[in-house]
Amino acid sequence: MIISLPASLGIGEKLSKILGLEHANTDYRIFPDGESYIKFTVSVKGKDVILIQTTYPNQDKRLIELLLAIDAAVFYGANSVSAIVPYMAYARQDRVFIEGEAVSIRTILRSLRSVGLDRIYVVDIHKENSLKYFNGAAYNIDPTPFFAKVLRNVISEPMVIAPDLGAERKAELLATLLNTEFVVIKKHRDKRTGEVRHELPETLDVRNKDAVIVDDIISTGGTVAKIAKYLKNLNARKVLVVASHGLFVGDALEKLKSSGVDRVYVLKTVDINISSEFVSILDPTELIAGRIRETFSSK
Amino acid sequence: MIISLPASLGIGEKLSKILGLEHANTDYRIFPDGESYIKFTVSVKGKDVILIQTTYPNQDKRLIELLLAIDAAVFYGANSVSAIVPYMAYARQDRVFIEGEAVSIRTILRSLRSVGLDRIYVVDIHKENSLKYFNGAAYNIDPTPFFAKVLRNVISEPMVIAPDLGAERKAELLATLLNTEFVVIKKHRDKRTGEVRHELPETLDVRNKDAVIVDDIISTGGTVAKIAKYLKNLNARKVLVVASHGLFVGDALEKLKSSGVDRVYVLKTVDINISSEFVSILDPTELIAGRIRETFSSK
Repeated sequence: MIISLPASLGIGEKLSKILGLEHANTDYRIFPDGESYIKFTVSVKGKDVILIQTTYPNQDKRLIELLLAIDAAVFYGANSVSAIVPYMAYARQDRVFIEGEAVSIRTILRSLRSVGLDRIYVVDIHKENSLKYFNGAAYNIDPTPFFAKVLRNVISEPMVIAPDLGAERKAELLATLLNTEFVVIKKHRDKRTGEVRHELPETLDVRNKDAVIVDDIISTGGTVAKIAKYLKNLNARKVLVVASHGLFVGDALEKLKSSGVDRVYVLKTVDINISSEFVSILDPTELIAGRIRETFSSK
Repeated sequence: MIISLPASLGIGEKLSKILGLEHANTDYRIFPDGESYIKFTVSVKGKDVILIQTTYPNQDKRLIELLLAIDAAVFYGANSVSAIVPYMAYARQDRVFIEGEAVSIRTILRSLRSVGLDRIYVVDIHKENSLKYFNGAAYNIDPTPFFAKVLRNVISEPMVIAPDLGAERKAELLATLLNTEFVVIKKHRDKRTGEVRHELPETLDVRNKDAVIVDDIISTGGTVAKIAKYLKNLNARKVLVVASHGLFVGDALEKLKSSGVDRVYVLKTVDINISSEFVSILDPTELIAGRIRETFSSK
Protein backbone atom coordinates (compact mmCIF):
# COMPACT_ATOMS: atom_id res chain seq x y z
CA MET A 1 0.00 0.00 0.00
CA ILE A 2 1.04 3.56 -0.65
CA ILE A 3 1.00 6.27 2.03
CA SER A 4 1.46 9.88 0.99
CA LEU A 5 3.33 11.94 3.56
CA PRO A 6 2.94 15.74 3.75
CA ALA A 7 5.27 16.45 0.81
CA SER A 8 4.20 13.75 -1.63
CA LEU A 9 3.59 16.04 -4.63
CA GLY A 10 0.42 14.15 -5.52
CA ILE A 11 2.57 11.28 -6.76
CA GLY A 12 1.11 8.77 -4.30
CA GLU A 13 -2.41 8.92 -5.61
CA LYS A 14 -1.40 8.67 -9.27
CA LEU A 15 1.04 5.90 -8.50
CA SER A 16 -1.58 3.89 -6.66
CA LYS A 17 -3.80 4.03 -9.74
CA ILE A 18 -1.02 3.01 -12.10
CA LEU A 19 0.10 0.15 -9.87
CA GLY A 20 -3.34 -0.81 -8.61
CA LEU A 21 -2.42 -0.37 -4.96
CA GLU A 22 -4.31 0.92 -1.94
CA HIS A 23 -3.56 4.56 -1.10
CA ALA A 24 -3.92 6.69 2.03
CA ASN A 25 -2.94 10.13 3.19
CA THR A 26 -1.78 10.89 6.73
CA ASP A 27 -3.26 13.26 9.26
CA TYR A 28 -0.73 16.00 9.49
CA ARG A 29 -0.24 19.20 11.40
CA ILE A 30 2.42 21.44 12.83
CA PHE A 31 2.16 22.33 16.51
CA PRO A 32 2.43 26.00 17.56
CA ASP A 33 6.06 25.44 18.58
CA GLY A 34 6.94 24.05 15.13
CA GLU A 35 6.95 20.31 15.73
CA SER A 36 5.39 18.05 13.11
CA TYR A 37 2.65 15.59 13.93
CA ILE A 38 1.91 12.58 11.75
CA LYS A 39 -0.83 10.01 12.12
CA PHE A 40 -1.63 7.11 9.83
CA THR A 41 -5.29 6.98 8.90
CA VAL A 42 -5.27 3.28 8.02
CA SER A 43 -3.78 0.17 9.56
CA VAL A 44 -0.39 -0.83 8.15
CA LYS A 45 -0.21 -4.11 10.07
CA GLY A 46 1.26 -6.85 7.89
CA LYS A 47 1.36 -4.56 4.86
CA ASP A 48 4.22 -3.71 2.53
CA VAL A 49 4.12 0.03 3.02
CA ILE A 50 5.48 2.48 0.45
CA LEU A 51 5.87 5.99 1.85
CA ILE A 52 6.18 9.02 -0.42
CA GLN A 53 7.89 12.19 0.71
CA THR A 54 10.16 14.62 -1.06
CA THR A 55 12.72 16.63 0.90
CA TYR A 56 12.73 20.11 -0.59
CA PRO A 57 12.02 22.74 0.51
CA ASN A 58 12.40 22.48 4.31
CA GLN A 59 14.81 19.59 3.99
CA ASP A 60 15.23 19.09 7.72
CA LYS A 61 11.51 19.09 8.51
CA ARG A 62 10.75 16.77 5.60
CA LEU A 63 13.46 14.34 6.65
CA ILE A 64 12.32 14.29 10.27
CA GLU A 65 8.75 13.63 9.08
CA LEU A 66 10.00 10.77 6.93
CA LEU A 67 11.83 9.33 9.94
CA LEU A 68 8.66 9.67 12.03
CA ALA A 69 6.63 7.81 9.42
CA ILE A 70 9.16 5.00 8.93
CA ASP A 71 9.40 4.43 12.66
CA ALA A 72 5.62 4.55 12.97
CA ALA A 73 5.21 1.98 10.18
CA VAL A 74 7.57 -0.33 12.06
CA PHE A 75 5.81 0.39 15.35
CA TYR A 76 2.40 -0.52 13.90
CA GLY A 77 3.65 -3.80 12.42
CA ALA A 78 4.20 -3.16 8.70
CA ASN A 79 5.66 -6.18 6.92
CA SER A 80 8.15 -4.00 5.06
CA VAL A 81 8.75 -0.28 4.70
CA SER A 82 9.82 1.38 1.46
CA ALA A 83 10.17 5.05 0.67
CA ILE A 84 10.01 6.97 -2.56
CA VAL A 85 12.00 10.17 -2.19
CA PRO A 86 11.63 12.14 -5.45
CA TYR A 87 14.33 14.60 -4.40
CA MET A 88 16.93 13.45 -1.90
CA ALA A 89 18.31 16.37 0.10
CA TYR A 90 21.85 16.54 1.48
CA ALA A 91 23.14 14.41 -1.44
CA ARG A 92 25.79 16.87 -2.56
CA GLN A 93 27.85 16.39 0.57
CA ASP A 94 28.62 12.82 -0.45
CA ARG A 95 32.23 12.61 0.70
CA VAL A 96 34.91 14.47 2.61
CA PHE A 97 36.06 17.44 0.54
CA ILE A 98 37.84 18.98 3.52
CA GLU A 99 38.95 16.97 6.56
CA GLY A 100 36.49 17.24 9.40
CA GLU A 101 33.35 17.64 7.31
CA ALA A 102 30.23 15.65 8.05
CA VAL A 103 29.31 13.43 5.09
CA SER A 104 25.67 14.45 5.18
CA ILE A 105 24.15 11.94 2.78
CA ARG A 106 25.79 9.14 4.75
CA THR A 107 24.11 10.40 7.92
CA ILE A 108 20.72 10.75 6.29
CA LEU A 109 20.74 7.35 4.61
CA ARG A 110 22.07 5.63 7.75
CA SER A 111 19.32 7.28 9.81
CA LEU A 112 16.54 6.28 7.43
CA ARG A 113 17.82 2.73 7.30
CA SER A 114 18.29 2.35 11.00
CA VAL A 115 14.81 3.39 12.04
CA GLY A 116 13.50 0.63 9.80
CA LEU A 117 13.49 1.55 6.11
CA ASP A 118 13.96 -1.57 4.00
CA ARG A 119 13.96 -0.07 0.53
CA ILE A 120 14.52 3.39 -0.89
CA TYR A 121 13.74 4.81 -4.34
CA VAL A 122 15.24 8.16 -5.26
CA VAL A 123 15.08 10.09 -8.50
CA ASP A 124 18.49 10.98 -9.89
CA ILE A 125 20.53 11.26 -6.73
CA HIS A 126 23.55 13.55 -7.06
CA LYS A 127 25.99 10.62 -6.99
CA GLU A 128 24.55 7.14 -7.39
CA ASN A 129 27.49 5.80 -5.45
CA SER A 130 26.14 7.50 -2.30
CA LEU A 131 23.46 4.84 -2.09
CA LYS A 132 26.10 2.49 -0.68
CA TYR A 133 25.52 4.25 2.66
CA PHE A 134 22.03 2.77 2.69
CA ASN A 135 22.55 -0.74 3.94
CA GLY A 136 19.43 -2.10 2.23
CA ALA A 137 17.85 -2.10 -1.21
CA ALA A 138 18.41 1.29 -2.84
CA TYR A 139 17.29 2.27 -6.31
CA ASN A 140 18.21 5.34 -8.27
CA ILE A 141 15.80 6.33 -11.01
CA ASP A 142 17.58 7.80 -14.02
CA PRO A 143 15.31 10.16 -15.96
CA THR A 144 17.73 10.64 -18.89
CA PRO A 145 15.88 8.36 -21.36
CA PHE A 146 12.65 10.14 -20.44
CA PHE A 147 14.24 13.54 -21.05
CA ALA A 148 15.62 12.29 -24.38
CA LYS A 149 12.12 11.32 -25.47
CA VAL A 150 10.75 14.75 -24.57
CA LEU A 151 13.61 16.64 -26.22
CA ARG A 152 13.47 14.70 -29.48
CA ASN A 153 10.23 16.48 -30.35
CA VAL A 154 11.50 20.00 -29.74
CA ILE A 155 15.09 20.19 -30.97
CA SER A 156 17.14 19.73 -34.08
CA GLU A 157 20.89 19.34 -34.44
CA PRO A 158 21.45 19.22 -30.70
CA MET A 159 24.72 19.35 -28.82
CA VAL A 160 24.77 18.22 -25.20
CA ILE A 161 26.78 20.12 -22.61
CA ALA A 162 27.76 18.81 -19.18
CA PRO A 163 28.54 21.70 -16.81
CA ASP A 164 31.08 19.58 -14.96
CA LEU A 165 32.58 16.11 -14.77
CA GLY A 166 29.82 15.02 -12.43
CA ALA A 167 27.31 15.36 -15.27
CA GLU A 168 29.51 13.59 -17.84
CA ARG A 169 27.77 10.22 -17.68
CA LYS A 170 24.38 11.86 -17.94
CA ALA A 171 25.51 13.97 -20.92
CA GLU A 172 27.01 10.95 -22.62
CA LEU A 173 23.81 8.96 -22.28
CA LEU A 174 21.63 11.85 -23.41
CA ALA A 175 23.89 12.49 -26.45
CA THR A 176 23.79 8.82 -27.38
CA LEU A 177 20.00 8.74 -27.14
CA LEU A 178 19.78 11.94 -29.20
CA ASN A 179 22.32 10.58 -31.65
CA THR A 180 24.68 13.48 -31.20
CA GLU A 181 27.83 14.69 -29.43
CA PHE A 182 28.53 16.02 -25.97
CA VAL A 183 31.07 18.31 -24.35
CA VAL A 184 32.13 18.43 -20.72
CA ILE A 185 33.05 21.79 -19.22
CA LYS A 186 35.87 21.54 -16.74
CA LYS A 187 35.27 23.06 -13.35
CA HIS A 188 37.82 23.95 -10.70
CA ARG A 189 36.75 24.47 -7.14
CA ASP A 190 39.06 26.14 -4.70
CA LYS A 191 38.96 23.82 -1.73
CA ARG A 192 39.53 26.59 0.78
CA THR A 193 37.28 29.34 -0.52
CA GLY A 194 34.76 27.12 -2.31
CA GLU A 195 35.05 29.45 -5.33
CA VAL A 196 34.31 27.85 -8.67
CA ARG A 197 35.98 28.64 -12.00
CA HIS A 198 34.89 27.16 -15.33
CA GLU A 199 37.31 26.37 -18.09
CA LEU A 200 35.24 27.39 -21.09
CA PRO A 201 36.80 26.24 -24.39
CA GLU A 202 37.65 29.20 -26.66
CA THR A 203 35.85 27.69 -29.59
CA LEU A 204 32.96 25.30 -29.69
CA ASP A 205 30.91 24.86 -32.81
CA VAL A 206 27.36 25.39 -31.64
CA ARG A 207 26.30 27.71 -34.48
CA ASN A 208 22.89 26.65 -35.78
CA LYS A 209 22.72 24.00 -33.11
CA ASP A 210 20.42 23.56 -30.15
CA ALA A 211 22.61 23.40 -27.07
CA VAL A 212 21.26 21.25 -24.25
CA ILE A 213 22.83 21.80 -20.85
CA VAL A 214 22.19 18.80 -18.66
CA ASP A 215 22.59 18.62 -14.88
CA ASP A 216 20.99 16.93 -11.88
CA ILE A 217 20.10 19.92 -9.71
CA ILE A 218 19.49 23.59 -10.42
CA SER A 219 20.02 25.40 -7.14
CA THR A 220 20.90 29.09 -7.50
CA GLY A 221 21.38 28.56 -11.25
CA GLY A 222 24.73 30.35 -11.28
CA THR A 223 26.72 27.68 -13.11
CA VAL A 224 24.12 27.03 -15.76
CA ALA A 225 23.58 30.74 -16.38
CA LYS A 226 27.28 31.27 -16.91
CA ILE A 227 27.48 28.46 -19.44
CA ALA A 228 24.29 29.55 -21.19
CA LYS A 229 25.71 33.04 -21.69
CA TYR A 230 28.86 31.54 -23.14
CA LEU A 231 26.88 29.33 -25.55
CA LYS A 232 24.73 32.25 -26.69
CA ASN A 233 27.91 34.25 -27.39
CA LEU A 234 29.05 31.38 -29.61
CA ASN A 235 25.76 31.77 -31.49
CA ALA A 236 23.95 28.66 -30.38
CA ARG A 237 20.49 28.71 -31.95
CA LYS A 238 18.71 27.68 -28.79
CA VAL A 239 19.95 26.99 -25.29
CA LEU A 240 17.86 24.47 -23.39
CA VAL A 241 18.44 23.31 -19.84
CA VAL A 242 17.49 19.85 -18.64
CA ALA A 243 17.73 19.06 -14.96
CA SER A 244 15.99 16.54 -12.76
CA HIS A 245 15.49 18.81 -9.78
CA GLY A 246 14.69 22.51 -10.09
CA LEU A 247 15.16 24.03 -6.65
CA PHE A 248 15.37 27.54 -8.17
CA VAL A 249 16.78 29.19 -5.06
CA GLY A 250 16.32 32.97 -4.88
CA ASP A 251 16.32 34.65 -8.29
CA ALA A 252 17.55 31.55 -10.13
CA LEU A 253 14.81 31.69 -12.75
CA GLU A 254 15.46 35.35 -13.56
CA LYS A 255 19.16 34.62 -13.78
CA LEU A 256 18.60 31.77 -16.22
CA LYS A 257 16.22 33.80 -18.36
CA SER A 258 18.52 36.78 -18.63
CA SER A 259 21.51 34.57 -19.44
CA GLY A 260 19.83 33.55 -22.67
CA VAL A 261 18.32 30.19 -21.73
CA ASP A 262 15.28 29.54 -23.95
CA ARG A 263 13.60 26.91 -21.86
CA VAL A 264 14.17 24.81 -18.74
CA TYR A 265 12.94 21.24 -18.34
CA VAL A 266 12.68 19.78 -14.86
CA LEU A 267 10.77 17.00 -13.16
CA LYS A 268 8.16 17.63 -10.51
CA THR A 269 10.33 16.27 -7.69
CA VAL A 270 10.26 19.25 -5.33
CA ASP A 271 7.41 20.98 -3.59
CA ILE A 272 7.49 24.45 -5.14
CA ASN A 273 5.03 26.24 -7.36
CA ILE A 274 6.30 27.70 -10.60
CA SER A 275 3.94 29.42 -12.94
CA SER A 276 6.28 30.36 -15.73
CA GLU A 277 6.00 29.49 -19.40
CA PHE A 278 9.77 29.39 -19.30
CA VAL A 279 9.83 26.14 -17.30
CA SER A 280 8.39 22.80 -18.37
CA ILE A 281 7.65 20.65 -15.34
CA LEU A 282 7.38 16.99 -16.23
CA ASP A 283 5.59 14.41 -14.13
CA PRO A 284 7.95 11.66 -12.88
CA THR A 285 5.19 9.30 -11.74
CA GLU A 286 5.38 6.90 -14.72
CA LEU A 287 9.15 6.73 -14.36
CA ILE A 288 8.84 5.85 -10.68
CA ALA A 289 6.06 3.34 -11.36
CA GLY A 290 8.26 1.60 -13.93
CA ARG A 291 11.14 1.24 -11.50
CA ILE A 292 8.86 -0.11 -8.78
CA ARG A 293 7.36 -2.67 -11.14
CA GLU A 294 10.85 -3.86 -12.09
CA THR A 295 12.16 -4.16 -8.57
CA PHE A 296 9.49 -4.49 -5.93
CA SER A 297 8.97 -7.72 -4.11
CA SER A 298 7.55 -8.35 -0.70
CA LYS A 299 10.41 -9.14 1.67
CA MET B 1 36.52 16.68 24.73
CA ILE B 2 33.56 18.97 24.25
CA ILE B 3 32.34 20.12 20.84
CA SER B 4 29.79 22.91 20.63
CA LEU B 5 27.38 22.51 17.74
CA PRO B 6 25.55 25.52 16.25
CA ALA B 7 22.93 25.72 19.01
CA SER B 8 25.08 25.15 22.08
CA LEU B 9 23.94 28.23 24.04
CA GLY B 10 27.50 28.90 25.15
CA ILE B 11 27.25 25.96 27.52
CA GLY B 12 30.14 24.07 25.91
CA GLU B 13 32.77 26.63 26.68
CA LYS B 14 31.68 27.12 30.29
CA LEU B 15 31.37 23.39 30.80
CA SER B 16 34.84 22.75 29.48
CA LYS B 17 36.23 25.17 32.04
CA ILE B 18 34.29 23.64 34.89
CA LEU B 19 35.27 20.09 33.94
CA GLY B 20 38.75 20.91 32.69
CA LEU B 21 38.15 19.46 29.24
CA GLU B 22 39.29 20.50 25.77
CA HIS B 23 36.67 22.50 23.83
CA ALA B 24 36.11 23.24 20.16
CA ASN B 25 33.47 24.88 18.01
CA THR B 26 32.48 23.58 14.58
CA ASP B 27 32.62 25.36 11.24
CA TYR B 28 29.02 25.88 10.38
CA ARG B 29 27.02 27.35 7.55
CA ILE B 30 23.73 27.03 5.78
CA PHE B 31 23.84 26.60 2.00
CA PRO B 32 21.63 28.83 -0.17
CA ASP B 33 19.12 25.99 -0.56
CA GLY B 34 18.82 25.61 3.22
CA GLU B 35 21.02 22.60 3.95
CA SER B 36 23.26 22.69 6.99
CA TYR B 37 27.01 22.15 6.75
CA ILE B 38 29.08 21.04 9.72
CA LYS B 39 32.82 20.58 9.95
CA PHE B 40 34.87 19.62 12.98
CA THR B 41 37.82 21.91 13.49
CA VAL B 42 39.80 19.43 15.56
CA SER B 43 40.53 15.74 15.34
CA VAL B 44 38.20 13.53 17.37
CA LYS B 45 40.10 10.33 16.70
CA GLY B 46 40.26 8.17 19.82
CA LYS B 47 38.53 10.85 21.90
CA ASP B 48 35.47 10.65 24.10
CA VAL B 49 33.46 13.35 22.38
CA ILE B 50 30.68 15.27 24.10
CA LEU B 51 28.52 17.19 21.65
CA ILE B 52 26.28 20.06 22.78
CA GLN B 53 23.21 21.07 20.84
CA THR B 54 19.80 22.20 21.91
CA THR B 55 16.78 21.59 19.70
CA TYR B 56 14.63 24.70 19.91
CA PRO B 57 13.82 26.70 17.91
CA ASN B 58 14.07 25.01 14.49
CA GLN B 59 13.71 21.59 16.03
CA ASP B 60 14.08 19.69 12.77
CA LYS B 61 17.20 21.54 11.62
CA ARG B 62 18.82 21.23 15.04
CA LEU B 63 18.10 17.52 15.19
CA ILE B 64 19.47 16.90 11.69
CA GLU B 65 22.62 18.84 12.63
CA LEU B 66 22.98 16.71 15.74
CA LEU B 67 22.65 13.56 13.63
CA LEU B 68 25.27 14.91 11.20
CA ALA B 69 27.69 15.57 14.04
CA ILE B 70 27.18 12.20 15.73
CA ASP B 71 27.72 10.37 12.46
CA ALA B 72 30.77 12.50 11.71
CA ALA B 73 32.26 11.76 15.15
CA VAL B 74 31.85 8.04 14.45
CA PHE B 75 33.24 8.48 10.93
CA TYR B 76 36.38 10.23 12.23
CA GLY B 77 37.05 7.57 14.84
CA ALA B 78 35.84 8.98 18.16
CA ASN B 79 36.17 6.49 21.00
CA SER B 80 32.69 7.34 22.27
CA VAL B 81 30.05 9.90 21.43
CA SER B 82 27.89 11.62 24.01
CA ALA B 83 25.41 14.44 23.54
CA ILE B 84 24.10 17.06 25.89
CA VAL B 85 20.69 18.21 24.68
CA PRO B 86 19.53 20.98 27.01
CA TYR B 87 16.04 20.94 25.49
CA MET B 88 14.86 17.75 23.83
CA ALA B 89 12.28 18.48 21.13
CA TYR B 90 9.45 16.13 20.20
CA ALA B 91 9.30 14.80 23.78
CA ARG B 92 5.61 15.51 24.30
CA GLN B 93 4.55 12.90 21.75
CA ASP B 94 5.85 10.13 24.00
CA ARG B 95 3.15 7.54 23.40
CA VAL B 96 0.12 6.74 21.28
CA PHE B 97 -2.73 9.01 22.33
CA ILE B 98 -4.73 8.14 19.21
CA GLU B 99 -4.16 4.96 17.19
CA GLY B 100 -1.99 5.63 14.15
CA GLU B 101 0.12 8.40 15.64
CA ALA B 102 3.86 8.46 15.27
CA VAL B 103 5.55 8.33 18.69
CA SER B 104 7.94 11.12 17.86
CA ILE B 105 10.34 10.93 20.80
CA ARG B 106 10.82 7.23 20.08
CA THR B 107 11.81 8.05 16.50
CA ILE B 108 14.20 10.80 17.53
CA LEU B 109 15.92 8.81 20.26
CA ARG B 110 16.18 5.70 18.05
CA SER B 111 17.69 7.81 15.27
CA LEU B 112 20.26 9.45 17.52
CA ARG B 113 21.23 6.12 18.98
CA SER B 114 21.48 4.30 15.70
CA VAL B 115 23.83 6.72 13.99
CA GLY B 116 26.22 6.17 16.88
CA LEU B 117 25.31 8.09 20.02
CA ASP B 118 26.47 6.20 23.10
CA ARG B 119 25.22 8.49 25.82
CA ILE B 120 22.65 11.26 26.04
CA TYR B 121 22.09 13.93 28.70
CA VAL B 122 18.87 15.89 28.59
CA VAL B 123 17.55 18.52 30.96
CA ASP B 124 14.12 17.72 32.33
CA ILE B 125 12.64 15.70 29.50
CA HIS B 126 8.83 15.82 29.39
CA LYS B 127 8.53 12.20 30.58
CA GLU B 128 11.64 10.55 31.97
CA ASN B 129 10.22 7.21 30.93
CA SER B 130 10.69 8.20 27.25
CA LEU B 131 14.41 7.66 27.66
CA LYS B 132 13.76 3.92 27.43
CA TYR B 133 13.61 4.44 23.65
CA PHE B 134 17.29 5.30 23.74
CA ASN B 135 18.97 1.96 23.83
CA GLY B 136 22.10 3.29 25.52
CA ALA B 137 23.03 5.35 28.56
CA ALA B 138 20.47 8.11 29.00
CA TYR B 139 20.44 10.67 31.79
CA ASN B 140 17.73 13.11 32.71
CA ILE B 141 18.83 16.16 34.65
CA ASP B 142 16.23 17.27 37.16
CA PRO B 143 16.51 20.98 37.94
CA THR B 144 13.98 20.96 40.77
CA PRO B 145 16.50 21.16 43.63
CA PHE B 146 18.22 24.01 41.82
CA PHE B 147 14.92 25.87 41.42
CA ALA B 148 14.15 25.27 45.10
CA LYS B 149 17.43 26.91 46.07
CA VAL B 150 16.68 29.97 43.91
CA LEU B 151 13.11 30.31 45.13
CA ARG B 152 13.98 30.02 48.80
CA ASN B 153 15.48 33.51 48.66
CA VAL B 154 12.52 35.22 47.04
CA ILE B 155 9.37 33.73 48.54
CA SER B 156 7.63 33.27 51.82
CA GLU B 157 4.75 31.00 52.70
CA PRO B 158 4.76 29.31 49.33
CA MET B 159 2.24 26.90 47.89
CA VAL B 160 3.24 24.79 44.91
CA ILE B 161 0.79 24.19 42.07
CA ALA B 162 1.11 21.48 39.42
CA PRO B 163 -0.93 22.40 36.32
CA ASP B 164 -1.58 18.72 35.60
CA LEU B 165 -0.81 15.21 36.78
CA GLY B 166 2.34 15.15 34.64
CA ALA B 167 3.86 17.81 36.88
CA GLU B 168 2.81 16.13 40.13
CA ARG B 169 6.15 14.52 40.94
CA LYS B 170 7.95 17.79 40.24
CA ALA B 171 5.50 19.73 42.43
CA GLU B 172 5.83 17.20 45.23
CA LEU B 173 9.61 17.41 45.21
CA LEU B 174 9.60 21.20 45.05
CA ALA B 175 7.08 21.41 47.90
CA THR B 176 9.16 19.04 50.02
CA LEU B 177 12.30 21.06 49.39
CA LEU B 178 10.44 24.29 50.20
CA ASN B 179 8.89 22.65 53.23
CA THR B 180 5.36 23.34 52.11
CA GLU B 181 2.29 21.86 50.40
CA PHE B 182 1.34 21.26 46.81
CA VAL B 183 -1.85 21.00 44.80
CA VAL B 184 -2.40 19.22 41.49
CA ILE B 185 -4.91 20.72 39.08
CA LYS B 186 -6.82 18.08 37.18
CA LYS B 187 -6.84 18.41 33.43
CA HIS B 188 -9.14 16.70 30.94
CA ARG B 189 -8.17 16.48 27.32
CA ASP B 190 -10.77 15.57 24.73
CA LYS B 191 -9.02 12.86 22.73
CA ARG B 192 -10.81 13.76 19.52
CA THR B 193 -10.66 17.55 19.54
CA GLY B 194 -7.53 17.94 21.67
CA GLU B 195 -9.43 20.52 23.73
CA VAL B 196 -8.29 20.92 27.32
CA ARG B 197 -10.44 21.67 30.35
CA HIS B 198 -9.05 22.35 33.83
CA GLU B 199 -10.86 21.31 36.95
CA LEU B 200 -10.08 24.29 39.16
CA PRO B 201 -11.05 23.67 42.81
CA GLU B 202 -13.67 26.16 44.03
CA THR B 203 -11.65 27.04 47.05
CA LEU B 204 -7.95 26.95 47.64
CA ASP B 205 -6.36 28.84 50.48
CA VAL B 206 -3.66 30.87 48.80
CA ARG B 207 -4.44 34.15 50.53
CA ASN B 208 -1.19 35.76 51.71
CA LYS B 209 0.74 32.98 50.09
CA ASP B 210 3.20 32.96 47.21
CA ALA B 211 1.83 30.53 44.64
CA VAL B 212 4.46 28.74 42.59
CA ILE B 213 3.23 27.09 39.41
CA VAL B 214 5.72 24.46 38.30
CA ASP B 215 5.90 22.80 34.88
CA ASP B 216 8.49 21.46 32.47
CA ILE B 217 7.73 23.46 29.32
CA ILE B 218 6.06 26.78 28.68
CA SER B 219 4.97 26.73 25.07
CA THR B 220 2.10 29.10 24.26
CA GLY B 221 1.60 29.71 27.99
CA GLY B 222 -2.15 29.14 27.80
CA THR B 223 -2.44 26.64 30.64
CA VAL B 224 -0.25 28.54 33.05
CA ALA B 225 -1.99 31.85 32.28
CA LYS B 226 -5.37 30.31 33.03
CA ILE B 227 -4.19 28.95 36.37
CA ALA B 228 -2.41 32.18 37.27
CA LYS B 229 -5.61 34.15 36.73
CA TYR B 230 -7.47 31.72 38.95
CA LEU B 231 -4.86 32.02 41.71
CA LYS B 232 -4.91 35.82 41.53
CA ASN B 233 -8.68 35.72 41.88
CA LEU B 234 -8.21 33.68 45.05
CA ASN B 235 -5.98 36.50 46.33
CA ALA B 236 -2.61 34.83 46.12
CA ARG B 237 0.03 37.37 47.18
CA LYS B 238 2.40 36.54 44.37
CA VAL B 239 2.15 34.13 41.47
CA LEU B 240 5.49 32.80 40.30
CA VAL B 241 6.06 30.37 37.46
CA VAL B 242 8.94 27.93 37.39
CA ALA B 243 9.60 25.94 34.23
CA SER B 244 12.68 24.30 32.83
CA HIS B 245 12.12 25.27 29.23
CA GLY B 246 10.62 28.58 28.19
CA LEU B 247 9.74 28.30 24.50
CA PHE B 248 7.41 31.32 24.77
CA VAL B 249 5.66 30.69 21.47
CA GLY B 250 3.89 33.72 19.97
CA ASP B 251 2.57 36.13 22.59
CA ALA B 252 3.13 33.74 25.50
CA LEU B 253 5.00 36.31 27.59
CA GLU B 254 2.29 38.94 27.18
CA LYS B 255 -0.32 36.35 28.05
CA LEU B 256 1.50 35.39 31.25
CA LYS B 257 2.05 38.97 32.26
CA SER B 258 -1.56 40.00 31.78
CA SER B 259 -2.81 36.92 33.62
CA GLY B 260 -1.21 38.23 36.80
CA VAL B 261 2.04 36.24 36.90
CA ASP B 262 4.63 38.23 38.83
CA ARG B 263 7.73 36.52 37.58
CA VAL B 264 8.80 33.56 35.43
CA TYR B 265 11.88 31.46 36.12
CA VAL B 266 13.30 29.31 33.34
CA LEU B 267 16.62 27.74 32.48
CA LYS B 268 18.67 28.80 29.49
CA THR B 269 17.99 25.60 27.57
CA VAL B 270 16.60 27.05 24.34
CA ASP B 271 18.14 29.40 21.82
CA ILE B 272 15.93 32.45 22.10
CA ASN B 273 16.65 35.96 23.30
CA ILE B 274 14.46 37.43 25.97
CA SER B 275 15.16 40.85 27.31
CA SER B 276 12.41 41.17 29.86
CA GLU B 277 12.73 41.94 33.52
CA PHE B 278 9.73 39.69 33.89
CA VAL B 279 11.73 36.53 33.14
CA SER B 280 14.70 35.21 35.10
CA ILE B 281 16.85 33.01 32.92
CA LEU B 282 19.05 30.71 34.95
CA ASP B 283 22.21 29.08 33.68
CA PRO B 284 21.99 25.26 33.71
CA THR B 285 25.70 24.67 33.12
CA GLU B 286 26.58 23.79 36.73
CA LEU B 287 23.65 21.39 36.89
CA ILE B 288 24.81 19.65 33.73
CA ALA B 289 28.42 19.58 34.90
CA GLY B 290 27.34 17.90 38.12
CA ARG B 291 25.48 15.17 36.30
CA ILE B 292 28.39 14.53 33.96
CA ARG B 293 30.81 14.28 36.86
CA GLU B 294 28.54 11.74 38.55
CA THR B 295 28.04 9.55 35.51
CA PHE B 296 30.67 9.93 32.84
CA SER B 297 33.11 7.17 32.19
CA SER B 298 34.99 6.36 29.03
CA LYS B 299 33.34 3.33 27.45
